[in-house]
Amino acid sequence: MRIPTGGRPVEELGEFDLIEQLGRVLSPKAGSPVTLGIGDDAALWQPRPGRQQVATTDLLVEYVDFRLEWLEWEDLGYKALAVNLSDLAAMGAWPRLALVSLGLRGIERDREIIELYRGMDELARRERVDIAGGDVSKSDTVFISVTAIGDVPLNQRVLTRSGAHVGDVLAVTGPLGLAAAGLRVMQQSIPWVDGSPAMRRAQLRPVPRLREGRLLARLGASAAMDLSDGLLGDLPKLCAASDVSALVDAVRLPIPSAVRWAFPDWLDLALRGGEDFELLFTAPRDVYVKIERAFPRRGLRPPVRIGEIVPRGSDGPEVLLKQPSGVTEAAMPGAFTHFGTG
Amino acid sequence: MRIPTGGRPVEELGEFDLIEQLGRVLSPKAGSPVTLGIGDDAALWQPRPGRQQVATTDLLVEYVDFRLEWLEWEDLGYKALAVNLSDLAAMGAWPRLALVSLGLRGIERDREIIELYRGMDELARRERVDIAGGDVSKSDTVFISVTAIGDVPLNQRVLTRSGAHVGDVLAVTGPLGLAAAGLRVMQQSIPWVDGSPAMRRAQLRPVPRLREGRLLARLGASAAMDLSDGLLGDLPKLCAASDVSALVDAVRLPIPSAVRWAFPDWLDLALRGGEDFELLFTAPRDVYVKIERAFPRRGLRPPVRIGEIVPRGSDGPEVLLKQPSGVTEAAMPGAFTHFGTG
Repeated sequence: MRIPTGGRPVEELGEFDLIEQLGRVLSPKAGSPVTLGIGDDAALWQPRPGRQQVATTDLLVEYVDFRLEWLEWEDLGYKALAVNLSDLAAMGAWPRLALVSLGLRGIERDREIIELYRGMDELARRERVDIAGGDVSKSDTVFISVTAIGDVPLNQRVLTRSGAHVGDVLAVTGPLGLAAAGLRVMQQSIPWVDGSPAMRRAQLRPVPRLREGRLLARLGASAAMDLSDGLLGDLPKLCAASDVSALVDAVRLPIPSAVRWAFPDWLDLALRGGEDFELLFTAPRDVYVKIERAFPRRGLRPPVRIGEIVPRGSDGPEVLLKQPSGVTEAAMPGAFTHFGTG
Repeated sequence: MRIPTGGRPVEELGEFDLIEQLGRVLSPKAGSPVTLGIGDDAALWQPRPGRQQVATTDLLVEYVDFRLEWLEWEDLGYKALAVNLSDLAAMGAWPRLALVSLGLRGIERDREIIELYRGMDELARRERVDIAGGDVSKSDTVFISVTAIGDVPLNQRVLTRSGAHVGDVLAVTGPLGLAAAGLRVMQQSIPWVDGSPAMRRAQLRPVPRLREGRLLARLGASAAMDLSDGLLGDLPKLCAASDVSALVDAVRLPIPSAVRWAFPDWLDLALRGGEDFELLFTAPRDVYVKIERAFPRRGLRPPVRIGEIVPRGSDGPEVLLKQPSGVTEAAMPGAFTHFGTG
């Protein structure tokens, strides 16, 4: 159980006081293109000329995407923005602006909601995003819906899921299964396993791979997406969009040893666990060599090659998994889905 | 009670099938600036050069903003987009793009959700807006969160709440209290009062005053906002933003006779009922004369002058209401608020 953290319940405070308070937390960033924010009917900003724009929206719902027993309001705010920025990262975009809609029961403390915005603001400042408006409503289920808007220079290709070609290298920007392990740690109230702080952190504070995504776009990666539903949830989507198959070498998957040691089903955590928010991308071989060199030069963790793009099979695009035993078989796609088996 | 309308429950259907189905409902509009929509990580569009952009988000939550006993899913979809476009209308913008996040219990029928998108699409087509993406999640409370993005020509002033000056005319674009009367009709299951179809329609299918808003911006109105929380909920915000007071002449309020005849508290419905989604605006006298002439010439209902902007009192900006009796007194601001008294 969470201990009440003081402050006034939102239902006593009133929506307008709350929004006013939030306005104070969310001071505009230096050099912001936003010329009109919280308090008017809409946010107004002046995109730089010569840029293409991208917009995305992602939703976190209590008991589905989070539990307030497991995370702090601050973590929730951080994560709600992070999962949206991760979508922009996958396209190689510069995030500019976010709008936030909140459903609250009304028994929440104002301090809790301000914590939520502080968590969001921490990431917003780091990535120079303006929280430019939003809406709040009463709801029996707590939820947070964020829309993020970004842009891409006109002369730069926007990374999509549909550009993968046969022969391309398939790679990820970081470890798999860590966030799912973190969820497991919290679900089972495991007080301590080796690496559990890193697991919890991966679950609560995923880092949107914005610099990585922009670099991938600039260097000529052929396709990208962010890993929100696990490799076997997401890779089939990339294959379908590109009309190709993928061959994944299980031995190459960057699964942290702590995950392997703590959980016997570590491969499943890595393949189907979801929420790693690393980028999954493809690139022609020569481009991949450049990417491998460019990442560490810019202080970024080098990407990990996990397989390659192969022609689609007779049954259409699929994911082939080369097991540690050497046997290769088609992997059952396993997306995280909110309704049934998807 | 609603009668089940057939189709499969969403929890059986799965999120991806649902999104695919929605993609078919939401075909791109002709001449759309959207180059990448549903199915990738984010929407992508190319705003026309030389335009400023605006973005807004509004949320409808079951049992707070709507009841599925009272409205069809199609109405819900229409209204969720309409309330967002109304915010863009208040700024004189051209809407371009909307992103939609849905919280569903999972027992909804696919046909119902497609109806929801059809209602939204009806308005989207009329106003040339692209529904370019979104998110769906399971939730015990049904809700719909829409973000709408629009633009305004660079050489045109964006209408805000803060531009009202002493001496300006205060006016509205249409009748007040009709939507609140419609809600009353549905709440009390009043089978028939004179004008009840118009009341229900005002509640279920509010028309965002986009053409009106753009014309107001072009002709030089000084301030505007949309009436979502009722005149006494919204006008105090405009006064506060502009640091002025407003004098409203109750006799001039455009309250339909049907509302006066059906409900003894008709003045309260008009002043505090909310959801009319007409525009409330101010304009210098000479500009107002032009506006009055320009509206009917373009087939728009002429605006109704309801008062004027006066200097703020010693207690700060306030709304003064001239009663039908001739007595003028400060009106209690009365916003519709989701939490307590606001």
